[in-house]
Amino acid sequence: MLPRGRPRALGAAALLLLLLLLGFLLFGGDLGCERRELGGRAGAPGCFPGQLMPRVPPDWRLRGAAALDGDPLAGPRDRNPSDCGPQPPLPPKCELLHVAIVCAGHNSSRDVITLVKSMLFYRKNPLHLHLVTDAVARNILEMLFHTWMVPAVRVSFYNADELKPQVSWIPNKHYSGLYGLMKLVLPSTLPAELARVIVLDTDITFASDIAELWALFAHFSDMQAIGLVENQSDWYLGNLWKNHRPWPALGRGFNTGVILLRLDRLRHAGWEQMWRLTARQELLTLPATSLADQDIFNAVIKEHPGLVQPLPCVWNVQLSDHTLAERCYSEASDLKVIHWNSPKKLRVKNKHVEFFRNFYLTFLAYDGNLLRRGLFGCPSQPPSGAEQLQQALAQLDEEDPCFEFRQQQLTVHRVHITFLPHEPPPSRPHDVTLVAQLSMDRLQMLEALCRHWPGPMSLALYLTDAEAQQFLRFVEASPVLAARQDVAYHVVYREGPLYPVNQLRNVALAQALTPYVFLSDIDFLPAYSLYDYLRASIEQLGLGSRRKAALVVPAFETLHYRFSFPRSKVELLALLDAGALYTFRNLSSWCCLRPSPSICPTLPAWTSLTSVPAPPIVAASRPLRMNSTRTCPATMGLLPSNTSQPCSSPGALPEAPEAAPLSTGQTPGQPGLPSTIPAI
Amino acid sequence: MLPRGRPRALGAAALLLLLLLLGFLLFGGDLGCERRELGGRAGAPGCFPGQLMPRVPPDWRLRGAAALDGDPLAGPRDRNPSDCGPQPPLPPKCELLHVAIVCAGHNSSRDVITLVKSMLFYRKNPLHLHLVTDAVARNILEMLFHTWMVPAVRVSFYNADELKPQVSWIPNKHYSGLYGLMKLVLPSTLPAELARVIVLDTDITFASDIAELWALFAHFSDMQAIGLVENQSDWYLGNLWKNHRPWPALGRGFNTGVILLRLDRLRHAGWEQMWRLTARQELLTLPATSLADQDIFNAVIKEHPGLVQPLPCVWNVQLSDHTLAERCYSEASDLKVIHWNSPKKLRVKNKHVEFFRNFYLTFLAYDGNLLRRGLFGCPSQPPSGAEQLQQALAQLDEEDPCFEFRQQQLTVHRVHITFLPHEPPPSRPHDVTLVAQLSMDRLQMLEALCRHWPGPMSLALYLTDAEAQQFLRFVEASPVLAARQDVAYHVVYREGPLYPVNQLRNVALAQALTPYVFLSDIDFLPAYSLYDYLRASIEQLGLGSRRKAALVVPAFETLHYRFSFPRSKVELLALLDAGALYTFRNLSSWCCLRPSPSICPTLPAWTSLTSVPAPPIVAASRPLRMNSTRTCPATMGLLPSNTSQPCSSPGALPEAPEAAPLSTGQTPGQPGLPSTIPAI
Repeated sequence: MLPRGRPRALGAAALLLLLLLLGFLLFGGDLGCERRELGGRAGAPGCFPGQLMPRVPPDWRLRGAAALDGDPLAGPRDRNPSDCGPQPPLPPKCELLHVAIVCAGHNSSRDVITLVKSMLFYRKNPLHLHLVTDAVARNILEMLFHTWMVPAVRVSFYNADELKPQVSWIPNKHYSGLYGLMKLVLPSTLPAELARVIVLDTDITFASDIAELWALFAHFSDMQAIGLVENQSDWYLGNLWKNHRPWPALGRGFNTGVILLRLDRLRHAGWEQMWRLTARQELLTLPATSLADQDIFNAVIKEHPGLVQPLPCVWNVQLSDHTLAERCYSEASDLKVIHWNSPKKLRVKNKHVEFFRNFYLTFLAYDGNLLRRGLFGCPSQPPSGAEQLQQALAQLDEEDPCFEFRQQQLTVHRVHITFLPHEPPPSRPHDVTLVAQLSMDRLQMLEALCRHWPGPMSLALYLTDAEAQQFLRFVEASPVLAARQDVAYHVVYREGPLYPVNQLRNVALAQALTPYVFLSDIDFLPAYSLYDYLRASIEQLGLGSRRKAALVVPAFETLHYRFSFPRSKVELLALLDAGALYTFRNLSSWCCLRPSPSICPTLPAWTSLTSVPAPPIVAASRPLRMNSTRTCPATMGLLPSNTSQPCSSPGALPEAPEAAPLSTGQTPGQPGLPSTIPAI
Repeated sequence: MLPRGRPRALGAAALLLLLLLLGFLLFGGDLGCERRELGGRAGAPGCFPGQLMPRVPPDWRLRGAAALDGDPLAGPRDRNPSDCGPQPPLPPKCELLHVAIVCAGHNSSRDVITLVKSMLFYRKNPLHLHLVTDAVARNILEMLFHTWMVPAVRVSFYNADELKPQVSWIPNKHYSGLYGLMKLVLPSTLPAELARVIVLDTDITFASDIAELWALFAHFSDMQAIGLVENQSDWYLGNLWKNHRPWPALGRGFNTGVILLRLDRLRHAGWEQMWRLTARQELLTLPATSLADQDIFNAVIKEHPGLVQPLPCVWNVQLSDHTLAERCYSEASDLKVIHWNSPKKLRVKNKHVEFFRNFYLTFLAYDGNLLRRGLFGCPSQPPSGAEQLQQALAQLDEEDPCFEFRQQQLTVHRVHITFLPHEPPPSRPHDVTLVAQLSMDRLQMLEALCRHWPGPMSLALYLTDAEAQQFLRFVEASPVLAARQDVAYHVVYREGPLYPVNQLRNVALAQALTPYVFLSDIDFLPAYSLYDYLRASIEQLGLGSRRKAALVVPAFETLHYRFSFPRSKVELLALLDAGALYTFRNLSSWCCLRPSPSICPTLPAWTSLTSVPAPPIVAASRPLRMNSTRTCPATMGLLPSNTSQPCSSPGALPEAPEAAPLSTGQTPGQPGLPSTIPAI
């Protein structure tokens, strides 16, 4: 109770003061706050501060949904929230973020790695990747992540084949096939205790920190469970062509390349029944889904608009064939996520595609080894083996003349097995896989090798990330290579200055799927008949379980740039006599020009026409190799695998078995032969 | 005036309501704002929201300065503002940001390019680079930026030599030499209308958008003119060793690797007199500056603490030898700028150096071509020639079988001339520069070439950004190459699938600084005596102004891996007779094995011992080259430069002048010979 008289005037003055203060706080103070809320770009056109803020009327979601029925891209007032809205607070420094990706097959596995590289480049939080994979992708990605050893990244695999029955009843015309539909069953597939997850398509590239996307969960109202960016094409408006009948959607509908899922709420709301019911209902009148899961998500959202939280357009800039994304990215100050959702992918026609391609190429070519960086101040379990490795590396003596070699021996190279599509050979009891390894400078040998060896091959390639892409284009451009599905290419990523010849051979050896292997060097071309000859020999000689043996194949070399490969032993001997061909290493000063029986005892026997008619193999011209542990290029494929002699002391080299550089042996796992060759 | 009785109670109730509202706004409302102000990482330890905000008491600056007298890194209360402060609003979308860098010499020019790459990678604003350079750096960087053609980047050059007199009176012990001190004279050097600039050392790497740094200008009070991060070592505390007497500084002092300069205010405050006065005064008792400009900046700030605005530590994470930066980066959620301010640079000992090195290596190896991306929605003048180029490219017909070649012909390759330190040869009237070009796979030729050619060389290397670094390490590791200062290496950055042989040769040719050039192919090794022989011949034959001529040099080839190079014509002929050496292209099917005079008419004349005793050159073994327009490797250096015949039709090739593959000619600019060879 206020006293009267003067005190009453005092009270009024105090009230006035309070009102003034209030006014200041309401306008002055809040303006300062608002300025910061602009997400930085105060002057950016088309900014709608507060659209995603809790202070905004609670009917915003409905307004947003209503706007979608009109032309949400037409005017700024009706648009999807742009990036100009306030930046929500990022998740705490060490909060674990969960990401789910469905991935099947060789090509998607390559795509997903580029996506993961872009994500890791910008991330500052620990990540848990939930990968729904077929057997092929699991095989590839398990090995990749195991050898990648990125700190603060956990990977869980879920078997896509087991999920197939849950979605296979849905007729689907989208190129993603059955796998595209699997995003629908994530709430029941992912661990029950997992409440929130970001779901990504494999054709996504990040251009910012995924934590900023995660932060948008904070804007979900109590009922919202699915965060999506509006579809940036007119597909769902149904006016793209005559009689185009898309699935139902709110206005332009939403794109499911990037999804924020509140799994807990979806489970609670009976998602499993909800989407199945909607899909069954729609399939009564529609023949199939055209855009896989996206059609069903949109149909469900049309029925339950309260589920969806629209996300700012920059979080899924869609570069589809007839994209309307330009309005989004040309106004935005900052791109967050690029979505290559045209079936043409990077070849999509778009006047700005160069700009976006540069982002993609950045991560395509990015050295994944550089992402092996930890997070400061976030305690996390190091990847398995990482600690022992660190200790072993720390114990090396930098003054040791062999330091570089010891360091390389401890290096764990990232390995991407079956980098390109590969069909394993049908199981045949005497089949032989050609096993070899190479670096970029030997790529031109592959076509000739494919022509000479019609059987399965397992090849390890020592490449940088950028070179792996060059290799991909090389194979795509070669009809000879592109036609072969039985050649498995395994990329071992380069690290360090040396060429880890035996690590490479071991990777290729481990991936050979036949009972026998033919260990060769990339500079050798086998005789056209060798593949058949070896299989016949293995059968005739009764190798295998009854007898352990290594078959020895003679080798020759030529120095001519172009050379007509001998088709028979008679032709070969004629070339040898004419001096157009030499016995292998004949030209090296370590061996005789015309080998005498005392030095090269096995050779004269073979060059006699009456000797065993084993098919010859011929060495191609062998240029010097850079960055190689094999400092003596002439000895490639010849020296014992743990020998690396300097060129300056050729006299000290052991006499190599001249005519027996190569052999076939049983694949690892079989008794009698070591499963791997000691590294370096 | 409030009415009495019931109304009075109403008034009181209203007042109470207002107080409640006020309380809500003060705490509830503001908390929401504060939460956003945390810059995102609400949970990050050691956050001091508001420290850089205008609402903070105006004496904060002084408190900040006072804190520096104690141990600012000791406790969170006394620290420099961390990155946890609020993110100030970013500058408007298309605001032009100005950056000044002092750069001199070959090595700093390489460094500055890596810095610029990191800056361009994250930037979203147009940039104007103000480069204070010596003649060497200007030469390199002018060509680089001209060929880089990055949209929305303007570059201005300022002559460092002209600035020398302004700072040369200051004795300086720092490794940056006189150039380090030039940051002091930027206010008077940069255009008078330029009010704000970010000044960077060349050993800086960005890990975030420079606009965020620019935004910190907004925090300057009316008097502040210099934004700096505290020095992250104990250097200025003067306790590093006995009798260590550093220049005066506030506490730990500030690091000048990253400076925000309000040039307008400094000019107004009489900066030129201010720093000179302070420097002169200090030099009365101190013998020299130890840390160049940084000592003087700190001394001035100690006298005028009102000038400085301390910046968050993450904007200059200093990896000096005894850095205390860990406290900064392990608490921060986000690194912004890394400063390699140890003289050891990347080899600095630091337990986290791998982490930082990965950032640096990212940009070192980053394909600079990918940074040729424009800024959406920011109109800017395209780089000179870019528009015509775009038009010409747009007019190409993708169906044209020569499309790839035409595209490559239009490609502007980034060119980094004199990539490594280079001393131009002294001017000699008959001097000859060996001109050649190569790609990575020919690097091993360089040592032999250096041994065979003691004179100047100008070599163009066709490399990716990553390969350029491998090349650098290769040269550093080779005593033969590292010892030569007269070999100029020019990096032409790879783009497209073809090998632009003539563009490369033209770059190397244009950089030759002698009156004569010897155009060779990288696979040829000249006779040991050829350099002297050519110079003598040029003099004896009276070439030059009086007579235009091309000298023809015979070529031979060997196919042996190791080969004893002939030291005389007699030795060479003996090897030829023994079959250890062939006339060049002897082994190719395009030429005779033992050439008859009718096919190779020039050869028999030379092989006669009585013929002109021109020194031989010998071709090394020539492996196939990948990605080459020269689809016929055997023809390298032989075919007319605009010929690129497929290997499949050797018969169609013109008969090459067998014994005359190489010639010396006058350098461009001289009359009588074309200055460049037509590209492709």
